Amino acid sequence: MNKGERTKKYIIEQSSSLFNTNGYKSTSIAEIMKATGLKKGGIFYHFDSKDDLAKASFSYSLMTLKENYLEAIKSKTSASNQFQAFITIFMTLLNNDIIVGGCPLMNAAIEADDTNILIEDSIKEGFEGLIKIIKDIIEFGKSQDEIDKHMDSEEMAVFILSSLEGALALSRLYKDKRYLDMITKQINAMLF
Amino acid sequence: MNKGERTKKYIIEQSSSLFNTNGYKSTSIAEIMKATGLKKGGIFYHFDSKDDLAKASFSYSLMTLKENYLEAIKSKTSASNQFQAFITIFMTLLNNDIIVGGCPLMNAAIEADDTNILIEDSIKEGFEGLIKIIKDIIEFGKSQDEIDKHMDSEEMAVFILSSLEGALALSRLYKDKRYLDMITKQINAMLF
Repeated sequence: MNKGERTKKYIIEQSSSLFNTNGYKSTSIAEIMKATGLKKGGIFYHFDSKDDLAKASFSYSLMTLKENYLEAIKSKTSASNQFQAFITIFMTLLNNDIIVGGCPLMNAAIEADDTNILIEDSIKEGFEGLIKIIKDIIEFGKSQDEIDKHMDSEEMAVFILSSLEGALALSRLYKDKRYLDMITKQINAMLF
Repeated sequence: MNKGERTKKYIIEQSSSLFNTNGYKSTSIAEIMKATGLKKGGIFYHFDSKDDLAKASFSYSLMTLKENYLEAIKSKTSASNQFQAFITIFMTLLNNDIIVGGCPLMNAAIEADDTNILIEDSIKEGFEGLIKIIKDIIEFGKSQDEIDKHMDSEEMAVFILSSLEGALALSRLYKDKRYLDMITKQINAMLF
């Protein structure tokens, strides 16, 4: 990676936390300049516009999360352990351990449903990817006789993701993981 | 209601849609002036600050929703019908029929978890009120032998609200009610 590429990556890393914390519309170039210590020209040398940077930052957050999910899951030989690994990564969204500011998908979805931000297609792609990860765990569980073969994998994956996202919002609001714990317990009871 | 009170109510009605759609931080006084057709002095004659107006607008949205929930539920004599009535009102959040911009609680929670907006206590109060409405339906169902007495009403109410909020975000993103339909079907199967 040459110096230009390193600077570009650095801007994306710093901006992605800001965008995810304060929203894509609210985050100003002034804030990004402050967070990166770069001048306006230094930022726009690497990106055509704020939207261009927002898009790159959102993709970066999603990619980071996706890699963490897949890495945590891949060594697990049962669906139950895979699901636990998935939950462990999801739970980090409460305490900003991997990504700062909560779930980038949910944050962007809540913002995008009303305003026309450019990343709507990326949000949909991100949700589809996340639903697929959960669906694959369920399908694997079925093939291993851990999960009832009659369960609709797609519907259950949507149910799991929806309830986790809702519970994450509650847990972040109250700074209390009990909402996520409650939902995880109930999903486990439904799955296994 | 005298003229001053009518003007105050009108400002709140117009602002609540703006705040719920664009966020509390993002919505500017200029936008509120445009939506109401009032000058700055006309707005701040009734409210001490933007935060004061934001708080009143949020309370107004919550009150409107709560009244609709309670009104829809009160005439129903079975928990199953009460729950269906609850879902019918919740579903209006998809198409902006009662409140514009999605669920005011979820929108504010997603915004408030990172920024210090003044209405955090009102958000918590709102979620508690909504969880109580669902919990009361479950308790009523238990007393009528419609719902298993061993079910933990509080945990189930949190599970129902979390999954509905997550599904609403997906349904609003895709402009497709299938996510809400999926979750409603599964919750009904769990409850009754």
